[in-house]
Amino acid sequence: MNCKKMVQITWQEYDAQKDRVLILPAGSIEQHGPHLPLCVDTVIAERFAELLAEETGAVVAPVLSYGYKSKPCSGGGPLFPGTIDLNGITLQNLLIDLLTEFAADGYNKIFIMNAHFENEAFIEEAMDLVSRRVGPSVHMLLSNWWDPIPEGLIDQLFDVVPFPGWALEHAAVTETSLMMYFAPELVRVDKISNIPPLTPPNYAEYPVPKDLIPESGTLASAYSSTAEKGKLIVDTVVPLLKDMMLRVFGSL
Amino acid sequence: MNCKKMVQITWQEYDAQKDRVLILPAGSIEQHGPHLPLCVDTVIAERFAELLAEETGAVVAPVLSYGYKSKPCSGGGPLFPGTIDLNGITLQNLLIDLLTEFAADGYNKIFIMNAHFENEAFIEEAMDLVSRRVGPSVHMLLSNWWDPIPEGLIDQLFDVVPFPGWALEHAAVTETSLMMYFAPELVRVDKISNIPPLTPPNYAEYPVPKDLIPESGTLASAYSSTAEKGKLIVDTVVPLLKDMMLRVFGSL
Amino acid sequence: MNCKKMVQITWQEYDAQKDRVLILPAGSIEQHGPHLPLCVDTVIAERFAELLAEETGAVVAPVLSYGYKSKPCSGGGPLFPGTIDLNGITLQNLLIDLLTEFAADGYNKIFIMNAHFENEAFIEEAMDLVSRRVGPSVHMLLSNWWDPIPEGLIDQLFDVVPFPGWALEHAAVTETSLMMYFAPELVRVDKISNIPPLTPPNYAEYPVPKDLIPESGTLASAYSSTAEKGKLIVDTVVPLLKDMMLRVFGSL
Amino acid sequence: MNCKKMVQITWQEYDAQKDRVLILPAGSIEQHGPHLPLCVDTVIAERFAELLAEETGAVVAPVLSYGYKSKPCSGGGPLFPGTIDLNGITLQNLLIDLLTEFAADGYNKIFIMNAHFENEAFIEEAMDLVSRRVGPSVHMLLSNWWDPIPEGLIDQLFDVVPFPGWALEHAAVTETSLMMYFAPELVRVDKISNIPPLTPPNYAEYPVPKDLIPESGTLASAYSSTAEKGKLIVDTVVPLLKDMMLRVFGSL
Amino acid sequence: MNCKKMVQITWQEYDAQKDRVLILPAGSIEQHGPHLPLCVDTVIAERFAELLAEETGAVVAPVLSYGYKSKPCSGGGPLFPGTIDLNGITLQNLLIDLLTEFAADGYNKIFIMNAHFENEAFIEEAMDLVSRRVGPSVHMLLSNWWDPIPEGLIDQLFDVVPFPGWALEHAAVTETSLMMYFAPELVRVDKISNIPPLTPPNYAEYPVPKDLIPESGTLASAYSSTAEKGKLIVDTVVPLLKDMMLRVFGSL
Amino acid sequence: MNCKKMVQITWQEYDAQKDRVLILPAGSIEQHGPHLPLCVDTVIAERFAELLAEETGAVVAPVLSYGYKSKPCSGGGPLFPGTIDLNGITLQNLLIDLLTEFAADGYNKIFIMNAHFENEAFIEEAMDLVSRRVGPSVHMLLSNWWDPIPEGLIDQLFDVVPFPGWALEHAAVTETSLMMYFAPELVRVDKISNIPPLTPPNYAEYPVPKDLIPESGTLASAYSSTAEKGKLIVDTVVPLLKDMMLRVFGSL
Repeated sequence: MNCKKMVQITWQEYDAQKDRVLILPAGSIEQHGPHLPLCVDTVIAERFAELLAEETGAVVAPVLSYGYKSKPCSGGGPLFPGTIDLNGITLQNLLIDLLTEFAADGYNKIFIMNAHFENEAFIEEAMDLVSRRVGPSVHMLLSNWWDPIPEGLIDQLFDVVPFPGWALEHAAVTETSLMMYFAPELVRVDKISNIPPLTPPNYAEYPVPKDLIPESGTLASAYSSTAEKGKLIVDTVVPLLKDMMLRVFGSL
Repeated sequence: MNCKKMVQITWQEYDAQKDRVLILPAGSIEQHGPHLPLCVDTVIAERFAELLAEETGAVVAPVLSYGYKSKPCSGGGPLFPGTIDLNGITLQNLLIDLLTEFAADGYNKIFIMNAHFENEAFIEEAMDLVSRRVGPSVHMLLSNWWDPIPEGLIDQLFDVVPFPGWALEHAAVTETSLMMYFAPELVRVDKISNIPPLTPPNYAEYPVPKDLIPESGTLASAYSSTAEKGKLIVDTVVPLLKDMMLRVFGSL
Repeated sequence: MNCKKMVQITWQEYDAQKDRVLILPAGSIEQHGPHLPLCVDTVIAERFAELLAEETGAVVAPVLSYGYKSKPCSGGGPLFPGTIDLNGITLQNLLIDLLTEFAADGYNKIFIMNAHFENEAFIEEAMDLVSRRVGPSVHMLLSNWWDPIPEGLIDQLFDVVPFPGWALEHAAVTETSLMMYFAPELVRVDKISNIPPLTPPNYAEYPVPKDLIPESGTLASAYSSTAEKGKLIVDTVVPLLKDMMLRVFGSL
Repeated sequence: MNCKKMVQITWQEYDAQKDRVLILPAGSIEQHGPHLPLCVDTVIAERFAELLAEETGAVVAPVLSYGYKSKPCSGGGPLFPGTIDLNGITLQNLLIDLLTEFAADGYNKIFIMNAHFENEAFIEEAMDLVSRRVGPSVHMLLSNWWDPIPEGLIDQLFDVVPFPGWALEHAAVTETSLMMYFAPELVRVDKISNIPPLTPPNYAEYPVPKDLIPESGTLASAYSSTAEKGKLIVDTVVPLLKDMMLRVFGSL
Repeated sequence: MNCKKMVQITWQEYDAQKDRVLILPAGSIEQHGPHLPLCVDTVIAERFAELLAEETGAVVAPVLSYGYKSKPCSGGGPLFPGTIDLNGITLQNLLIDLLTEFAADGYNKIFIMNAHFENEAFIEEAMDLVSRRVGPSVHMLLSNWWDPIPEGLIDQLFDVVPFPGWALEHAAVTETSLMMYFAPELVRVDKISNIPPLTPPNYAEYPVPKDLIPESGTLASAYSSTAEKGKLIVDTVVPLLKDMMLRVFGSL
Repeated sequence: MNCKKMVQITWQEYDAQKDRVLILPAGSIEQHGPHLPLCVDTVIAERFAELLAEETGAVVAPVLSYGYKSKPCSGGGPLFPGTIDLNGITLQNLLIDLLTEFAADGYNKIFIMNAHFENEAFIEEAMDLVSRRVGPSVHMLLSNWWDPIPEGLIDQLFDVVPFPGWALEHAAVTETSLMMYFAPELVRVDKISNIPPLTPPNYAEYPVPKDLIPESGTLASAYSSTAEKGKLIVDTVVPLLKDMMLRVFGSL
């Protein structure tokens, strides 16, 4: 395979690739119900990054395993054990250091492949602050795997259960299907239950009420998830992300 | 009128109200096209806060006039003059200090009435950090005026131009209508033009490309805005926000 | 009137004024005895800013409603409810962001009109740090309404009660007179009592002793305050501040 | 195998293990000469953590892939491409957040398995600050794989080339042998050359002189490295680390 | 002598004194004209602390040699070589750490003897923040040597040149006299010249104009300074400071 | 003597020396057993700095009296009264400000003479961060008095008691001998006892166990210390440090 993982190459090999795109996958350690492991976002971010790198010759940096605080209505929130929450400023400063270092090494096309929604505001803040410092020659792009999904695919994926909106797609059909495709050995299929989606409040409240989220941590049904649906998402989204990179970076 | 603005009352009067809800309106100084002033979010946040206070006997704190960085596809972004952007950590620390002070004064029902979308991640981070420090007896609630709007009202408001989604409703029908209702003397009606909504990219890119946003700063059409539509929003949303406060705080 | 409030103008109008001075008023929310509201410093800062803008064609930015911690012997201190204290570093970073943004928009004559004594050290620190970063072409000026008052005027103002020194002129003759002139509806005239001035200690002590400050929060007598005295201050100080601006900025 | 990787288990499985030790491996992305990949410290930290977990039933948290700044005379320093350096305060705050979160989840025996020397001062600072906050019931232990190595083993490992001291054992016999044992596919054996060890200065100098470190980035000879030597280190050190954990934590 | 300097005693001797007052002198390194060395504030702070300790049995901590930024009109400002300026937050955090450590060692009567005016706002901020953390049992007091000076003494000191106000008493009669008394070998008497006092502006301006301050750095005349005047200040102020300590701490 | 202490010279004299080296001594306030005062590191750092200045014409800045947290196995740790610990970031920021100021004054050869081992990581971090900001023309050097000591001298010094390694040489033969040479009046000779060296653990543990360190705070025997041994260290090390300065700075 031609995916160049930064962890596997020497400094000389890394130096020789600096005209390529560098992809930084960003995940989290966060409860994903009784049927999925804590690493869902990390695995998905890393696998998308690798597949994109195979398509584009990009270099893949080590995944960010720890992410910003889980919010109740998009990830179950901070009350679940195993949800390891960074403060926003910690994640932001981590990104600032990493982006600055990649740029200092001569990489000026950096794609942050995010798979944990809550990360985004603090990653963007870091991108903005780094951009002011390193100047316009360094291009930084942030995306994820759900925003590029077209309407049509949503209909195909939600043929059995209704689409609850992306915020509630936590440990539900799309993430479960992606994990069945990427890492089936980590999915406890017998623990999947068909539950109605949470009706989330249209506000944020602190302290987070203990009974806001179903005890299992699942926000919507994972019923009808299949590895085939996971593959369908991947096969649709990877080319769209490649197009996006080409549009923003000019060349790959 | 029975709205108790914190700026107008003495310290003794403020002290006597501490069983009431305290409302902190949060706005921004941000370009809003050629037909609206820089203070749109500030005026709207403050007026909703006052109307809610009249309904609930709440105390209104001085509005936060300066907010977090405008994002290109929900506010036009940082390249427009007059868009005054705070860094995320600055806004966050400002909120931390204020929430801590209100709680220290004995107020334990605090409602942050936000009218600038980009503020939310950093306000929530402050709420979380303060909540850990002051403990569960202090209840903090964050909402805005658009999330409670029901589907049916959207249809009424967008009878002429299509609803472009809330992110693009910047200087468009809803904000313009609210300003025509709240502060008609600040609306340059003759500068309203009927433009198609921006087709925003599904990613974030830095540096922000100079040609991403229409030169005027408007993200969707403000055509068909009326003070009546503004009133309709207010009359629908205020009771819904009051219900929300009652649900979260138990009493008002 | 030709006062250009930043909140009322569009981004294009703001952009067209950038050769003018930008005035940033700085106040606080702080107890001011039983006869004055919490917003005294904010109202006074804002009104002086507007009057100066009318004289000079300057643009007025939204007032900073929240200021640095009240000190016992110049504002009554932190123990009074309604005194909302920012940490020094919070105010400093807020100023840093704002001054940086105004300068980035092309404004290089910035006047900070302060009306809360305690703000000054942290505003100056921000001015210094911003000046190092943006370079010498951006001129920043900090003043207030009491330092320019000439000896002769002091004698006129304190015709009945003795002048206790500026630190103790908190909720006393000058601030009360200014409020009677600027916002008479906010003054509880019947709550004014003739008290002798506090004899303040010549040191700072923490924790602040609970009995250091009179229970009412007034540090010196407000007796003999009149709107005419307020007008006298304004009519004297505004031209002096205008001269100061001219001296520092070269042109207005 | 009975190694419980936090990334592979669900939140309920993680919650059920909280009486166990939690091991947090800490590595870096740092040049390791022409024969080893950038991830040496990360692989070694992670593998030791997993082996220890198999011996002790501990839970393994995701490895910290990014570490503190490489120093010239223990890692080649910041001038090599591919050496991705975090600022000290960034690493420190990352540790503070993680240790706080693990403790909040009920884990009170935390072992930080470090494989990047430069990390240590900032990890210890985080341990100290967290310890003050969470109190004495949470025990935190920091060690690495080299400090427990007994004199006798050093003689066995350095049978061909001389032992240059631990600081210079960067990309040299011990790290190369460990990588040949743990991940032989990542070692470019043909790129190993027999060089004399660097004679490091007994001081620190900034800016780092460009010619201080050999162009290859290797600080001492990796000649005579073998997978058997790697296994010898592992078989010696793992029981010693297990003893250390037992001594500090009381039980495993 | 019975002055207990913390630097001279062992940890056991220090521990045995913890019911006493601890005095922390605070100075600066700042230009003091052509006739005085850079250490004026440091020497004066340290000597007052020692004299007070002799009177009260207090323990003296090592002096803070570096202080907050010199301001033009009270110290000559940042443009003079040899004026070594700490940022406000640096001084503040230094004080926070020190006060916290002294309190943790059981000292709950701490007197900060300041001799550099500009330090005060940031020392007070540290006192406030530490006080909130360590609680009301720790009493902290900040004073200096000029605020206690009575009117009558001023007349005696300024028998030849006029009193320019305390802000301008920089490298002038009082500081020069104190240095002639405390450290005559450090005074270049032949470099004293009789200059009129600076007429300072009643505002702060950045960047600081290069010609604001006389080239020599002296803000008012040091003419007529004598060691006797220095002794007079000391003999008057030390008992007043002792009284102040007694009043605030209850016992010494 | 021709040692130019920054505290003793005027700003004009300081300015005239800026082609010279500036030496910043760094010590600590830390328990040093029952026979040595808290200021050992400070005295030693300052005296080495002065001797070096006499040899090289360097300017000596005021010593840093307060240092980073004492570690148990190199200084006895935080549990001893009189050990005054700065947080790492506080020391780092103090250094950043000082190095920046010296460089701004035109000094571009700065030698940090450290005598407290624990300071080093945070001083180096400051050096690195300042170096990036001020550029390569400013040379900064960090050393101490123990790293240059040659093997042969160690044998001479440890003729009676065994050399326990540098980490444990705390309040032991070398520091005690240096203090007997530099400041004999501060050594309580009768309190010296001949104890076996601590056997330190090969890991770091928090909270620090109360019984880890001998009650006296001494980590190894000070028995056989003499002023002659102190002189021997000084006479050997000063020329080696001078050579080091010459090598790094090119000229003195």
